[in-house]
Formats: sequence, structure tokens, C-alpha cells
Amino acid sequence: SVNPDLASERQTASFSVEKLTALLDGGAEQTRIRRAVVEAIESDPVFSRENQYFQTQNERYEAAVRKAVHLQKKMHEMGWTEDGPEYKYIYRALSGDVAFLLHRVFMRSISVLGSDKQIAKWIPLATQHKLIGSYAQTELGHGTYLQGLETTAVFDTATQEFILNTPKISAMKWWPGDMGRSATHTVVFAQLYIHGKCYGIHPFIVQIRSLQDHSLCPGVTAGDIGPKMNFEHIDNGYLLLKNVRVPRENMLSKFCEVRPDGTYVRQGSQKINYFTMTTVRISLIADEVLTPLMKACTIAIRYSVVRRQSKLKPGEQEAKILDYQTQQEKLLPQLAAAYAFHFTNDYLQELFNRGYREIQRKNFDMLPELHALSSGFKAVITQHCTAGVEICLRACGGHGYSLLSGLPSLYTKILASCIYEGENTILLLQTARFLIKCFMAASAGQPVPPSVTYLAAGKHGKCPAKNKLDFLSPDIYTEAYQHVAVRLTSSTAAKLQDLIQSGVKKHDAWNQCTVQLVQAAKAHCHYIAVKNFAETVEKLETKAGIQKIMKHLCDLFALHGIFSNTGAFLHDGYTSAAQMDMVTASYLDLLAVIRKDAVPLVDAFDFTDQSLNSALGSYDGQVYQRLYEWAQKSPTNQISPAYERYLKPLLHNTLSKL
Amino acid sequence: SVNPDLASERQTASFSVEKLTALLDGGAEQTRIRRAVVEAIESDPVFSRENQYFQTQNERYEAAVRKAVHLQKKMHEMGWTEDGPEYKYIYRALSGDVAFLLHRVFMRSISVLGSDKQIAKWIPLATQHKLIGSYAQTELGHGTYLQGLETTAVFDTATQEFILNTPKISAMKWWPGDMGRSATHTVVFAQLYIHGKCYGIHPFIVQIRSLQDHSLCPGVTAGDIGPKMNFEHIDNGYLLLKNVRVPRENMLSKFCEVRPDGTYVRQGSQKINYFTMTTVRISLIADEVLTPLMKACTIAIRYSVVRRQSKLKPGEQEAKILDYQTQQEKLLPQLAAAYAFHFTNDYLQELFNRGYREIQRKNFDMLPELHALSSGFKAVITQHCTAGVEICLRACGGHGYSLLSGLPSLYTKILASCIYEGENTILLLQTARFLIKCFMAASAGQPVPPSVTYLAAGKHGKCPAKNKLDFLSPDIYTEAYQHVAVRLTSSTAAKLQDLIQSGVKKHDAWNQCTVQLVQAAKAHCHYIAVKNFAETVEKLETKAGIQKIMKHLCDLFALHGIFSNTGAFLHDGYTSAAQMDMVTASYLDLLAVIRKDAVPLVDAFDFTDQSLNSALGSYDGQVYQRLYEWAQKSPTNQISPAYERYLKPLLHNTLSKL
Repeated sequence: SVNPDLASERQTASFSVEKLTALLDGGAEQTRIRRAVVEAIESDPVFSRENQYFQTQNERYEAAVRKAVHLQKKMHEMGWTEDGPEYKYIYRALSGDVAFLLHRVFMRSISVLGSDKQIAKWIPLATQHKLIGSYAQTELGHGTYLQGLETTAVFDTATQEFILNTPKISAMKWWPGDMGRSATHTVVFAQLYIHGKCYGIHPFIVQIRSLQDHSLCPGVTAGDIGPKMNFEHIDNGYLLLKNVRVPRENMLSKFCEVRPDGTYVRQGSQKINYFTMTTVRISLIADEVLTPLMKACTIAIRYSVVRRQSKLKPGEQEAKILDYQTQQEKLLPQLAAAYAFHFTNDYLQELFNRGYREIQRKNFDMLPELHALSSGFKAVITQHCTAGVEICLRACGGHGYSLLSGLPSLYTKILASCIYEGENTILLLQTARFLIKCFMAASAGQPVPPSVTYLAAGKHGKCPAKNKLDFLSPDIYTEAYQHVAVRLTSSTAAKLQDLIQSGVKKHDAWNQCTVQLVQAAKAHCHYIAVKNFAETVEKLETKAGIQKIMKHLCDLFALHGIFSNTGAFLHDGYTSAAQMDMVTASYLDLLAVIRKDAVPLVDAFDFTDQSLNSALGSYDGQVYQRLYEWAQKSPTNQISPAYERYLKPLLHNTLSKL
Repeated sequence: SVNPDLASERQTASFSVEKLTALLDGGAEQTRIRRAVVEAIESDPVFSRENQYFQTQNERYEAAVRKAVHLQKKMHEMGWTEDGPEYKYIYRALSGDVAFLLHRVFMRSISVLGSDKQIAKWIPLATQHKLIGSYAQTELGHGTYLQGLETTAVFDTATQEFILNTPKISAMKWWPGDMGRSATHTVVFAQLYIHGKCYGIHPFIVQIRSLQDHSLCPGVTAGDIGPKMNFEHIDNGYLLLKNVRVPRENMLSKFCEVRPDGTYVRQGSQKINYFTMTTVRISLIADEVLTPLMKACTIAIRYSVVRRQSKLKPGEQEAKILDYQTQQEKLLPQLAAAYAFHFTNDYLQELFNRGYREIQRKNFDMLPELHALSSGFKAVITQHCTAGVEICLRACGGHGYSLLSGLPSLYTKILASCIYEGENTILLLQTARFLIKCFMAASAGQPVPPSVTYLAAGKHGKCPAKNKLDFLSPDIYTEAYQHVAVRLTSSTAAKLQDLIQSGVKKHDAWNQCTVQLVQAAKAHCHYIAVKNFAETVEKLETKAGIQKIMKHLCDLFALHGIFSNTGAFLHDGYTSAAQMDMVTASYLDLLAVIRKDAVPLVDAFDFTDQSLNSALGSYDGQVYQRLYEWAQKSPTNQISPAYERYLKPLLHNTLSKL
């Protein structure tokens, strides 16, 4: 039976939840396929996550390996293939709680960086799991700056081998997933030396464990890097190499080859490599970033209509906490952001697909724009969504702090997305470098990529809004965002030029502008996200109430961004103080409007109870029963040796009749 | 040997680190006592925290109990008493990693709420550990709103007993520390019923476990609530009561008594009760909030001068990451906040001591101000410091995400401080209620408490700064903060009045203003923190470079607050856009200045390596060695059954020669 406080929220939905789910999935047929996958996975007890919050790191790892192995069988049984329409839903259905994800990266890196011969040899072995692969790039002392990697691969002409070494402790490979305990092979990135000359970083396939008994190969030291904030199921590893020899054929050689005599030959274009990073950054947004935020919103919003605390009106029943303005102001902007970035992701995917088609036609023109957008949005979306999950957690008070709410593990996992695949600040600075370059080009009347043509516009003017309702007009707020993005880019470009003209060296000047460059990059991405959301809403079908509620969310997303960052809009007087008060009024009004549909809006995400794995967020809202039942199963409710060892002697030493 | 990159940072300190440590401790003698306590605790292997990051919740609990029991012995050995000067340093030296903290709350509640007779009976029993106490207030369905508690205590005149029940699942006591597995007794808060009439919430001493064998008493169901984000060492518990009878004498009766015939008698003033909450909120700031931020700053800043990544200048060595402006902008404001709030805490302590003396003279006039300040600052400081620890964690990239950095557990622990002892939003609204009341009074020419007299001033005017150096003048920025606090309070008061005058009911009007009321409360606290820091700096001795560096930190704290919240200062034109650009320039300049002293400034916090428990933050900066050595000890480096069970069959099924 559904908690009546939750049930009542569903009766007044202003739109069709099922239609909205289909919109999010990209069509009703996709919804059907997704649900079939979820059903097949969740009905299989091997994939259960029920005990996850009670398990040690060792138990989590073992379960992840068990699931990965079982998944092979399951896919075969179900007739799912890696090219099939079901494939993309499997990972989501497993909530990523599975081993051998780096095995895929191992395969992809061979496909992208290997010669046809290498692909023909290694890919079938990997596909059939005759080996388990990993990807060893990051070192203890080196992350973002690849040129700084210290691992070496010296070519020995006599034996036609590369000799690999991690010469210092900081050169030790550190973090690679699946490498701590599972992998038999890995792709090692190392500085290539031939006849004493360094040719920079190259990838080498290295066997690290025996295929017979899994013992470490000679010269290899490897293990697990120990406990982390999350990812207990992944055996992130370390790897030391001491004179480990691999044959010449093990250097991945699509782009560079070492001939038997030691001649180094570069071939083909490496541009596609940048495209690979772009691919990864875009592909992680949906599963690793949006899904956790959507889950957190589902949990926190359902809980906030079940939880009653204190009174809004004297004499009445305690109020649902979602009826407090402050609670709405915490949660509803996160909900709006989840929708906004879902549509941003669609936009990026489309751009990416277009770029991919061009690249296949050897046209690399779109690469810089794609790189800038994927870098900037990876940073902005991971940052925004991580903050959003934390807000959801804190908005659930004490119960949000219990692992059983599901929120702590969503938070600790999404947090990692701000760090991996490019640290966010560094990514934003890459976007900023692109913006400055395009701004200069546009100012000089040169053509620039479509997403930045607005930089040339450079209108000054004032915001034309006359009353608070004007701020529900997408033109009004989109232009305000555009104005801020132009202002921040142009003023930072001016500062940069001033510094250089005053004699500051280029790299110092750049460093002195980086705080402001980061602001400009964020403003650019925020503008595009708002603009894209508004354009998406424009195109939606008006029936079933979908367009109307999406318009409200778009308005909320835009106004929340202004309300939380008023200075950027007030700075040069584009928005006046009186207009800012209108923004605030419209923003607060919207909270009350969207609050009515809050539960249907999270229901549309269509998470099953198993996938939420939360005592607070279940569809039926039986929060307290679930917390109690679940807690009773905790290993902390087994008898502890602490009583006999410490408590009994303490109490009995001095025991007297009370 | 100290890492040379770290050692070089210490050679150029502009001030005496030892003098600054003494200032933070409140004198060189205090430093000496603190170090002696730390030395005694850390040299005792029972108190070791070395394996903490590898331990399960059960192991952490057991260790905490072991330490708590051992601590009794240790105190006896060392001659430390609860009234002695060493006492306050013990908890800090243990990093709070010890059981029976609620036993103290049990004792304090009896001291405050109990009659002299009750105190005489129970306090000696508790002091001698003839029982282990807890404090059972929060319920599964009820936290902040005490009047909503559902547990009942019905007086039975026939037997002269109270019959206690948790009649619904939401009435179950949930969260009390030490109760899940340890406590034999607890103070239960329940609705008192006599002859069918409810008299509201009262405290009752209830025995829950046998003193002979620790089995649960009849009618009692209790256990541990399971895994949380942190606090694994604490057995937060649940408690169900079914017709549990306690004698009439077990109701704590300093303020209210039930006579044998069922007559209810209220006696004395309960005002002191509010003072107790104030005490707790202020007392947690130092150990639970400031210490974690100071530790996080120490770890992140030391790591940021050891870690080299990428190049600032072409051709040079890779740069220390603290030399990047963006890294400075992440960490140095957190360092400034740690110092700022250290001095705020001194201010609150002094105010509190003054209030305490007044209360002992039966003068309760200071209570409302104390309540408002302790509530507001509890919220503002916990929020600010929690965000600060998270920034430190993220600023250390991947290594910050490893538990071995020490940062994840600092974060997950400090996060709880935003929730316990009053949820932050609710506390800020209490401060706001006080502000609105005082603003109205001040506007009507009535006297108001000292901390809010500024609300009457209501100067409009403009910021007089003419160049960026003017923003290094405490008068200039303190007045700007004051202006914003007045503006937010007065404009929200006006909105509130307008709504009420337009016919909106009082409680609805209040709810519609809460988002802005929270802003006003924060602005008030921020203003006081800035003002107090500036006044503190003014009074410091000028020698040994202390005043100079503290002045820099004060400026940074103030300007960072403006830079991060420009809209509040720009809104009504108090600060112009040109002035805001000066703020930005001064702020960025300051980062480069303070960066030079960053390491000495964290060294002054004087944390030992053991207390930091961090592979990144040690005094010698041997980061990579420590990470590697520590990771090798992880239980994840023991042989996993996953190989034999899953990996071997997978690999061997299809094994062929590679």
C-alpha cells in the first residue's frame, strides 16, 4: 500500500507521467526495451544490490566480479549483443556495480591505437575473455599532464623488445581499474626511448599476470591501492615494472611504429585521439552524472512529501516538509537541472554524431568546438550535479546521512566524476582558451564555430523586462545569459591583453587570469544549456501537459541561475536592481507552481525500487518501515565481542544494586 | 628527511610559527599542556588510529569502546581530571574516535534537568561507570520539532509508575549514540499523560539492558541503526518500548514534578534549558567543525607544494600546483576562513561566559541574543567549513579521493555537523526571527542587544573606496558587509509586512519570505565574523610578523566573501561595478601574497602526523612513499576468493596460448 501522503501527490499531476518518461527515453519503444532489460536484470538474484551497504571492500569486489562473469552468461541467454538496442541499458540497470569496465577501455584503446594486425590478434582474445585487460596511464605522481609521465620503454634492437621500467616511486602506475587484482594484461603508457633519444608517450600491451595461475609476471609488482570514498567494487591498482620485456609488436602502432633497426616512423593523423577523449567525456554524462542526480531527486522529493515536521499553520497537522519554501528552494532547482542537463546531453550527443560523420569524411573542422564543449560541459555538469546530490542528501536531514537512504553512496560516487576524465578546473581552462581564441577571431571579423558566433554580437544595451512575468520569457533570460557570457569573455580577454602589453610574460598573464577565465567558461556553458532547454521546450508537443511543465522547469533552471549569481547580471547594469527583484519574485513563485508536480516529475524518471536501493525513496513511500527492517539486517546487530571484552569488566568491576 | 619542495616553503615564513600556535592556543602555557596530552595519547598504542581506514563498522565500534575503557585508566595514570586543564585536549587528541560520548550527555541532562535527589543518586553511578547512559530524544519520524514526539509516558497512580510506550513505528527512538549496543540506561523524552491529559514532553530515566548480562529489559527492543556516512565508531541505536514501567522518581524533576496523587507541579524557570542548547552549539564548533577544516587545509596545502603538475613556464620544471592561481583560489580562502572562525569562536565563547555569569545572577536578558548568535553561527560555520573541506578534498584530485588522504573521512564527518544539534536552515530561521524582531524594535526607537544595534543605523550612502588598495581597509569592507546585512533584513521585513497588509496570513507570509530570511541571517553572521576578525587583528601584537599575516588573512576572508557574492553588494549600488573590479583585483593580489606563507600558516595549527592520519599531509611531505606503503597493508591486498571462484573458470574455459 502506498503511503497516502505520497499517493495524493500523484493524483493531481498536470501531465502524463508515461508520456514524459517516453520523451526522456527517446520514444515509447525505447522505454519498452529499457524496462525489459531492467526486469531481466532485477529478477536475477546474482545481480542483487540489497546487501551492498553492509559489505566490505573485499566483498564488494568479489560481488562485482561475480556479476561481470554472470553477465556474459545472461547476455547469451537473453540474446543481447554489444550492438543491440538493449546493450546501453544493461549498465544502467546494474547501477554500474560490475567489474571489468576497464577491460572495455583496454579493447577500445587497441581498436583506436592499434594496427589492423594488432586489432586482429588482441580483440578476439579480449572479446572471448581469454585475458582480462586494463589501461595503465595515470601514475602516482602524474595525472593530467601526460607529457610528464615517467615510465620508460627502451627499445633493444638486439632482442627486438621494449624494456619497460617505472624508474621512480612517482612513476608507479596508480589508479587503473581492474588492475589491482583482476587484470592479466594492460596497456601501459610510457616514454619511448630509441638509441637514447626520447620520442614521447606511447602505448604498450604488457602482460602482468600469468594466465595459468594468475601469479605476477617476472619484474611486475602489482596490487590494490586500498580504500576510497566509493568504487569499493573496483580494484583500482598499482603497478611497478622492473625491466619487463615485451616484443616489438606490442607497441600499439596505428600512428607510430618502431622498425626493427630502431627507425621511428610516424604515420596517419593523431587527431582522432582527441576525439576519443571527447567521446568518453560525453558518454559518461548520462550514466555517471545525470542518473545519480535523478535518483537523488527521486529519493529526496518522495521523502519530502512523506516526512512531516513542524507546523505551517497553528492548529493544523504537521506539514509535509516539501511545503516549506526553503525545502522547495533546495530540491526543485536540482530537479530542473536534471531535466536541463538531460536535454544538454541530447544536444551534445547530436553534435558529437555530426562530428563523427565529418571525421569519417576526413573533415576535422569540428574538433576544436567539440573538444571545448565536451570539456566545458563535462566540468559544469559534473560540478552542478555533484552539488545537487549533496543538497538532496542534506535536505533529508539525519535519514539522508544513513547509507540506507542511498544518498551517501550516490554522493561519494558522483563526486569522483569531478576528478576523473579530466580535472574540472583544467577542462574549464581548455574551454576558456577556445573562447578567447574565438573571441579574438570574431572581433577581427573572422568566422568562428556556430556555438560561439554570439561572441561577435557584443550588444551592450539593457534587459528590457518591465515586470516579473517578463522573466518567464525565454528570450529575456536567454539574452541575459548571453550578455553575461560575452561580458566575462571580453573583459578577461582585455585583461589578458593589458597584462601582456604591460610587459607581463604570456604564461604569467594567463595564470593571472585563470580565476576569471574559469568564470567565463562556466558562463558560456550555462548560456548554452539555458538556450538549448528553451529551444527544446519550443519544439515539444503541447498535448498531455508536457510542454507546459517543461516550460516551467526551463524557467526555473534559468531564474535559479540568475538568482544564485546575481552579481554577474547586475555588474554592468544590464539587469537593474528592480529587475533583479522581479527575478526573485518570479523565481519564488515558480517554486510553488512546480512543487505541485514534484512527485510526478521524479516518477517520470522511472527508477525501480531496486535501482534506487533506498529506504527513503521507494515508490510506496513506506519510509520508516523500510529503515527499521533494513537496519535489523545490519551486521552491527550481531553480537559484538566488545561486551565480553570491555563492557562487562567495566560494569561488573563496580557493579552494585541500582 | 623532509621533501625539499616542502622544506623550502618553511624557510621563507614571514612570521614566527611558534608564536602563532601560541596565539591560537590562547598562550604558550596552553600549547605546552596540549602537546603533553597529545604526546601521552599518541605514544599509547591502544589509541592508535592507523588501521582505521581499513576497518569495518563492527571493528570501529569495538575499537572505540576499547579506547573509552582504556581512557579511564589513562586519565587515572596521568592524573588528569575532568576539571583539569588537560581535559579539553583529550578529545581533540583522540580525534573524537572514542565511545561513550552520549554517556556525558546523559550525565549533563541529569545535572541540568534532575532534582538534587536525582543528581545525588545517578551522577555518582554514571561517574563510576556502574551504568552506561544514553540520551533518547530523536524519533524515526521526529527530529527538530520536539512537540511532535510520539513516545508516551502514562502515569499509573496505582503503582506510582510511568508506563512508557512507542505506540507507532514513527515513534521509535532512532539515532541516539551509544544506545545501539552499549547503553544500559537512557533518558527517554516522552509525552507525559496523567489521568488522560497530556502535559507535553518530559524526560525519564529508563533502564534498557540488564546490568548482569546486558540482555534487553522486558518490553525493550533495541539495536543498531546500521551503516552511516561516518561515525562508524558510534553505535547509533533504535529503541522500541512496550509497556515499560519506571518508578515515579525516574522523571527528571527539576522543573516539573508529578505528585503521588497525579498532581502536576511546575517549578522554577525553564529558561536555563535554552541555554543548554546554546552551550552545545557553541561547544561543538572548535572540535567538530574548525579542527576538521584546519586538518583539511593542512593536508591540501602541504600536498599542493609537493605535487608538481604541468608547466607554468615553457622549458621549466613542472610547477607546484599551489603556484596556479586557480589552486590558490580554492585553498587560501578556506585557510582564511579557518582563522576567521577560530576568532569568531573566541568571540562566542566570551559572550557565552558573560551570559553564563548573568544567568547565575538570575538575569536572563542575554538569552535571546545568545540563542540567535549561537544558532546562526552554528549554521554558518558548519556550512562554510563543510564546503571548505570538500573544496580541499577536490583540490587534491584523485589522491584526495583515496581514504588514505584522510580527506574523505574529514568530509563525511563534518557533513553531519550541518544536520545534528539543529538543522541549519531551521537554525538560520531562528536567527532571522530575532533579526526581524530587533529590526522592528530598533526602527521604533526601542533598545536592542549590542550585536544588532547596527540595524538601527540604516545609512544608505555609497562605498567610499577609490582604488583597489582602499579595499584592504577594514573600515571599508566591514561597512560594506554591514550595509548588506541591514539591506537584506530591512527589505525582507518590508516584504513580510506588505504580504500581511495585503491579507496573507502571518504564517503563510513568513513561509513566503523564508528563502530571503535565510539570506539575511547569513549576512548578519558574515558581517559579525568579518568585524570581529578585523577587531581582533587590530589588537594583536605587531612583533614576530603575526599581526601582518593575520591582517592579510582578514582581508582575504572579507574580500573572498564579496567576490563570491557580488550581487549582494552591487544590488542597490552601494558598491559600483568599478569598485567591484577593484575588489577582484585586490582579492587576486592577496592570493599571491598569502600563498608565500601558506605552509607556515598550516604548520601553525600544529597537528601531528598521527592526528592528521593522512598520506598526503604529513609534516615531511613524503606523499608517494606513504601512499604506497599504506596501500600495501590494505586487506584488499590479501588473496581474494574471486580468482578461484570466478576469474580462473572464466579465463581457463577458453584458455589458449597467447
